[in-house]
Amino acid sequence: MKNLIIIGGSDAGISSALRALELDPKIVVTLIVADNYPNFSICGLPYYISQDVSHWKNLAHRTKDDIENEGVRLFLEHRANSIDTQSKTVTIVNKSGVIKVLDFDKLIIGTGAVSVKPNIRGIDHPGVFFLRWIPDAFAIDEYIKKHNPQKAIIIGAGYIGMEMSEALSRRGLKVTVVEFFDSVMPSVDVELGLKIKDILVSNGITVYNEIAVESIDKNGDNLIVKGTKGFEFQTDMVLVSVGCIPNTQLGRSIGINTGVKGAFKVNQKMETNIPDIYAAGDCVETWHKILHKYTYLPLGTVAHKQGRIAGENAIGGNREFTGSVGTQSVKIFDKVIGRTGLNKKEAIDAGFKPISVDFETWDHKVYYPSAEIIYIQVIADRMTKRILGAQMLGAYKTEVSKRIDIFATALYHEMTVQEFSNYDLSYTPPLSSPWDPVQMAVQKLEKLC
Amino acid sequence: MKNLIIIGGSDAGISSALRALELDPKIVVTLIVADNYPNFSICGLPYYISQDVSHWKNLAHRTKDDIENEGVRLFLEHRANSIDTQSKTVTIVNKSGVIKVLDFDKLIIGTGAVSVKPNIRGIDHPGVFFLRWIPDAFAIDEYIKKHNPQKAIIIGAGYIGMEMSEALSRRGLKVTVVEFFDSVMPSVDVELGLKIKDILVSNGITVYNEIAVESIDKNGDNLIVKGTKGFEFQTDMVLVSVGCIPNTQLGRSIGINTGVKGAFKVNQKMETNIPDIYAAGDCVETWHKILHKYTYLPLGTVAHKQGRIAGENAIGGNREFTGSVGTQSVKIFDKVIGRTGLNKKEAIDAGFKPISVDFETWDHKVYYPSAEIIYIQVIADRMTKRILGAQMLGAYKTEVSKRIDIFATALYHEMTVQEFSNYDLSYTPPLSSPWDPVQMAVQKLEKLC
Repeated sequence: MKNLIIIGGSDAGISSALRALELDPKIVVTLIVADNYPNFSICGLPYYISQDVSHWKNLAHRTKDDIENEGVRLFLEHRANSIDTQSKTVTIVNKSGVIKVLDFDKLIIGTGAVSVKPNIRGIDHPGVFFLRWIPDAFAIDEYIKKHNPQKAIIIGAGYIGMEMSEALSRRGLKVTVVEFFDSVMPSVDVELGLKIKDILVSNGITVYNEIAVESIDKNGDNLIVKGTKGFEFQTDMVLVSVGCIPNTQLGRSIGINTGVKGAFKVNQKMETNIPDIYAAGDCVETWHKILHKYTYLPLGTVAHKQGRIAGENAIGGNREFTGSVGTQSVKIFDKVIGRTGLNKKEAIDAGFKPISVDFETWDHKVYYPSAEIIYIQVIADRMTKRILGAQMLGAYKTEVSKRIDIFATALYHEMTVQEFSNYDLSYTPPLSSPWDPVQMAVQKLEKLC
Repeated sequence: MKNLIIIGGSDAGISSALRALELDPKIVVTLIVADNYPNFSICGLPYYISQDVSHWKNLAHRTKDDIENEGVRLFLEHRANSIDTQSKTVTIVNKSGVIKVLDFDKLIIGTGAVSVKPNIRGIDHPGVFFLRWIPDAFAIDEYIKKHNPQKAIIIGAGYIGMEMSEALSRRGLKVTVVEFFDSVMPSVDVELGLKIKDILVSNGITVYNEIAVESIDKNGDNLIVKGTKGFEFQTDMVLVSVGCIPNTQLGRSIGINTGVKGAFKVNQKMETNIPDIYAAGDCVETWHKILHKYTYLPLGTVAHKQGRIAGENAIGGNREFTGSVGTQSVKIFDKVIGRTGLNKKEAIDAGFKPISVDFETWDHKVYYPSAEIIYIQVIADRMTKRILGAQMLGAYKTEVSKRIDIFATALYHEMTVQEFSNYDLSYTPPLSSPWDPVQMAVQKLEKLC
């Protein structure tokens, strides 16, 4: 084992490169990056558009120099055109068409995902945007600077849609969100989704639910967005954020099997069905620890974990990806939403008999200044009393995101409702209560069990 | 089983009362409270003295009415004078000397702790205070209002000493802390203790280490505090906060066995050696989950857990206290310190071969505004790679306290350094990184393992 080639320079690719070199600095690690932005935090793009980020270069987790100083051989602005599994080579090409053929002993594919382009007539009109990669963010930013749009429509109320509704509002646009489902943030249950909708509305966002957008027409400088139920809305720009699909063309060309949503099938060692070829990140299926099956969960946290494991195993390690529990958090205006595990719908679909509790309390002792209400929903399985998931909403900086991590950690260990009170969690009046709110919520659920 | 009597109206007593009634509302639960302040948050007293708490009544976790509405029969300002284990009665007396004899089927003792009164000549002088109960806080507050002291000396740099140094500073006093050990907050390792000392110093507190205070002399309106190494300091008031000892006189009078620091010996069901008599809270020994032995850990969180279990078992339940891992957090000025598990000294004393890492990183992605550095120390056992403890320091509202809870939860499950990266923790750029700082710290430790 001498040559490790990694295709893709985002979370999974970089994590695998660094892990391999950390464990064996003698390995030659070559990283092929299609654009000029290796290891950029694409999760930070909404904050670039909101102008919270002072310069786009700050979005780099690591600079080109940082990566090269770790010993990684970088090919920026090179595309991997083809893989030959017999000769064990990757053919790469740069913008000028110059071709190189590189040998590998092991190969890791981290080609990520691309934005879903839904079947909406007129989706290619100027003024209609997607947001996934750095150039997408530049395009949006430049459009705002050049055209000074007053109104934006966001199609899709997932977490990127939520973050972008804040970002565009902060750029002075009047934002309207159009969502197919009956709430916002479909990864949480409707009760919480409606609370999040209230946050948007109270911050000046208009939200339309249960509308399928069907067409975007150009009318002079304006765009006319039309949908079901007679929806018709004139706007200056449109952001389409209805999720992403794995980018698997290269891998499929050499026969890598695909599964859920077309993502590469991998085992828990991140091996594909082709010997010596691994895959990780948004292009692969992800093992779900609670569902005990593969799902598609394109998240930066998961990509980092999978990349680290692929990098370790590619150079002879034997580590397994133990699975995601679906943890996510998002800040929207001055609030934070966290979720982990299964929501009620997911629990029912998976054959559990969920029982749940909604609970509200102060984030810390109310006698100490600036206490804020946090909302907690906990879901357990009626039969086994095992905790299945939790969802939370609170003000920014009320430790909501790390409180959801207490649940995420408990889920990893398959904790029951009864045992959860055994956790020795920290308390000081300015930050919690003698029973942390997460334990109070579970104790309320325990009464129903 | 009909009559449950509980002696003591603080955390353990109230928790056991409420748990018993929650499980069986037909039980007659009688609660004997020595003062007029049942279920007050004594952890909040520093914030009363700092005047963050607008009225002392707000310090009540629950009011007298709340408690009675839960069905608890309250005897306020009654002392339990004696227990007769043969006739199963408790004799109580009120301030006027009126005696009542109450029958019990089961009895829970939650008599708490009292401040340690060290052997310092002159400790009874006016102007020398302790802080444990509400009247202590009133006395300090009244003294400040009446005498307008300019300077205070705090003897003892434990967490109450730390909180009180802030509280008295905020009341306008120039505060000096005198500590016997070589750092502050002896529950954390010296490296972190010295950082905490820096916080105090940068907030105008003077700290003297390795001084044993020997005498307090009255000199007109002033107090002269003298100690080893020629320490001599004139001040206007003194707070002695060198810990507490269990209040066990009543229980010892009926033969309840005592152990560590004189606390009642209990099993994990919170049973004492006397049939039908339970004990919980600051008056009992506490099972330490990592040390696998009994310790003395007088903390509100622990008292709540033990009380809840005593209450459940007293009415026929069968729940075990699984143990504390020693989790604690404290806010000092604009910083928060959290700790859980064993520190290095404790780990060595317990026979482990600890290996540790010091790590600093941003609490969230630095491209998003107002990121702050957090310091994390993680300790593991070199042989088993099991995580033994963690200590953390960061700005208030950087989720330090709930980040320490991720470790507290991991400790409950006896997590290893390698497995810790499997946790699916939440990430959004305004609140964390794709690997949460706690995982980055453990990964750094993993390299040393």
